[in-house]
Amino acid sequence: MGKKVCIVGSGNWGSAISKIIGQNCASDDAFHDKVHMYVYEEMIEGQKLTEIINTKHENVKYLPGHKLPANVVAVPDLVQAAADADMFIFVVPHQFIRRLCSTLKGKIKPDAIGISLIKGMYVDEMSHSGEGMDHTEAGLQLISDVIREILQMDVSVLMGANIASEVANGDFCETTIGSRNLQNGQLFKRLLQAPSFRICVVEDANTVEICGALKNIVACGAGFVSALGYGDNTRAAVIRLGLMEMVKFAKAFFPNSPPQMATFLESCGVADLVTTCYGGRNKRVSEAYAKSDKTIEELEAEMLNGQKLQGPQTAEEVYKVLQTLKIQDSEYPLFVSVYNIFYNKHDVKSFIECLQNHPEHM
Amino acid sequence: MGKKVCIVGSGNWGSAISKIIGQNCASDDAFHDKVHMYVYEEMIEGQKLTEIINTKHENVKYLPGHKLPANVVAVPDLVQAAADADMFIFVVPHQFIRRLCSTLKGKIKPDAIGISLIKGMYVDEMSHSGEGMDHTEAGLQLISDVIREILQMDVSVLMGANIASEVANGDFCETTIGSRNLQNGQLFKRLLQAPSFRICVVEDANTVEICGALKNIVACGAGFVSALGYGDNTRAAVIRLGLMEMVKFAKAFFPNSPPQMATFLESCGVADLVTTCYGGRNKRVSEAYAKSDKTIEELEAEMLNGQKLQGPQTAEEVYKVLQTLKIQDSEYPLFVSVYNIFYNKHDVKSFIECLQNHPEHM
Repeated sequence: MGKKVCIVGSGNWGSAISKIIGQNCASDDAFHDKVHMYVYEEMIEGQKLTEIINTKHENVKYLPGHKLPANVVAVPDLVQAAADADMFIFVVPHQFIRRLCSTLKGKIKPDAIGISLIKGMYVDEMSHSGEGMDHTEAGLQLISDVIREILQMDVSVLMGANIASEVANGDFCETTIGSRNLQNGQLFKRLLQAPSFRICVVEDANTVEICGALKNIVACGAGFVSALGYGDNTRAAVIRLGLMEMVKFAKAFFPNSPPQMATFLESCGVADLVTTCYGGRNKRVSEAYAKSDKTIEELEAEMLNGQKLQGPQTAEEVYKVLQTLKIQDSEYPLFVSVYNIFYNKHDVKSFIECLQNHPEHM
Repeated sequence: MGKKVCIVGSGNWGSAISKIIGQNCASDDAFHDKVHMYVYEEMIEGQKLTEIINTKHENVKYLPGHKLPANVVAVPDLVQAAADADMFIFVVPHQFIRRLCSTLKGKIKPDAIGISLIKGMYVDEMSHSGEGMDHTEAGLQLISDVIREILQMDVSVLMGANIASEVANGDFCETTIGSRNLQNGQLFKRLLQAPSFRICVVEDANTVEICGALKNIVACGAGFVSALGYGDNTRAAVIRLGLMEMVKFAKAFFPNSPPQMATFLESCGVADLVTTCYGGRNKRVSEAYAKSDKTIEELEAEMLNGQKLQGPQTAEEVYKVLQTLKIQDSEYPLFVSVYNIFYNKHDVKSFIECLQNHPEHM
């Protein structure tokens, strides 16, 4: 009997990755043929989304135009979808993960393992403060920390330069799995790899995940310099200086599992950052923000169908952590400048001054 | 008396950087006010280019539309331009550097220092072969090696995400100076830095220089995947896998000065690579090559005014080194695939197979 797989989530990215998972589970005896996909039930033109997926094999709402494998079965009840699963793929918007995990608590196999495809992080009210504290003591929680804490399972992460529509098309790309337990990481690689979706597994899981969260702040900066009329040189500098702040942040907040420089050269690091800073929505919406008088909420409504932009939120969360720990703004000038432009109405041109005075060049 | 500066070269990049050098020499007592720029004499509509530069203060041929500082003086005689210089900026096409250095030999100040802005490398016939040999033993010479050998001077290098026209416009960007002698590196930083041209100095000079040469091969690959209709995910994978081969090559051929991973995160590494793979001419011409039946020479004539494309040449040079040392093609599949597509008429689609079977994912 192969491992049973449950995909928790069915948005654009979850549906795209379900194409690969379905194919691999159908052809590899290591996995059970039938894959459960938890789908938040919605009515689409009078019909249930789960029914549409299970009959037409298409997620008409979030990945229209792509056939999903017939062995991917949509299940509207989370507990039922998850009950006998050995391997979980978490791929929901990050604001839902706590509630979903709480629902699953005590109702899944005790030796189940998971992987998070979710980008973002939480910042809680601080309980302590001081130098050299670990990220959790600083009030910062990764998504995998949340899952791990509530469900007491080993959780890997998958992050990379993976625009969902291109993955669904089968265009060649790479990704990174970060696993504290490399055996579990290799099992997830076996489940998720395809000829055009190539995976490197690394042990430095926190760095993989923090890259996925922080890159969106940098992408906002890339949008600002585009709005100001700058070209490829300036964007490359934003990407690189942003990467340097990501490295510094990872070093500062994960002293117990020091980040490896090589991890930043994986797909989750520089590759994802580049893709996000050229074509991603954080870049596009930030560019529009800099060029108009609209609020970020108005632009989210106009350009993203009301979905929340992650970059400004993450910049705010990072800023909160820095403030509480009394870390100077000048330690992370790019992150702080993005925050100030969104939340304190600083002129977008101040972003260039921040680049010109960046401590990297002092 | 401040240090006298001589710029050897007056093309697009040399002219752009002369704007910064002229300004800094005019305002900083560490440098002599008057800057010599060696200009290969050409007649432009009946007038000498040096005369035009010295009267109109514009290089009408290679950087039209930009005023050069009046203290940058064009000199058509190389030996005369160089005679009393303390600091040299070498910025000529790489095929000319040997001849120019031979002309200068014995005619410059014995304690003069230099910096090379030239991208490329030489491959000579092999004299030895074997494992673990240094790059010079493998027949591979960096441009700075050539200058160092002929002129017996300390040579730094400057490489980064620096599209010349954007630098001339004063758009913000970063660059990297690599210096075996950090004091000399800092002096060049003082000469070359400006509010919108920010410099990091590192000691790992070979890596800085090798990045500048090898990136053009990767850019050809980026052009191929664009021609095949792939998007940002695939390009990001090409950039990253190319970077991995650059790292491997640097490690293999510079065992006596092992490359630092951090250097690949400087502007000369990932930032320059990104810029080159998005907007550079190696990417553009390779994309056109993949889409047409024209030879690379025809496209150089059409798209580059007859200038040589560096990527195919460098791929050929790297391939020669690998062949002589009997290194398997599969060690550097991306570099070798670019070579084969240009020189052995391999189908461009074979590039995708090379990505799918890349050893990074095994």
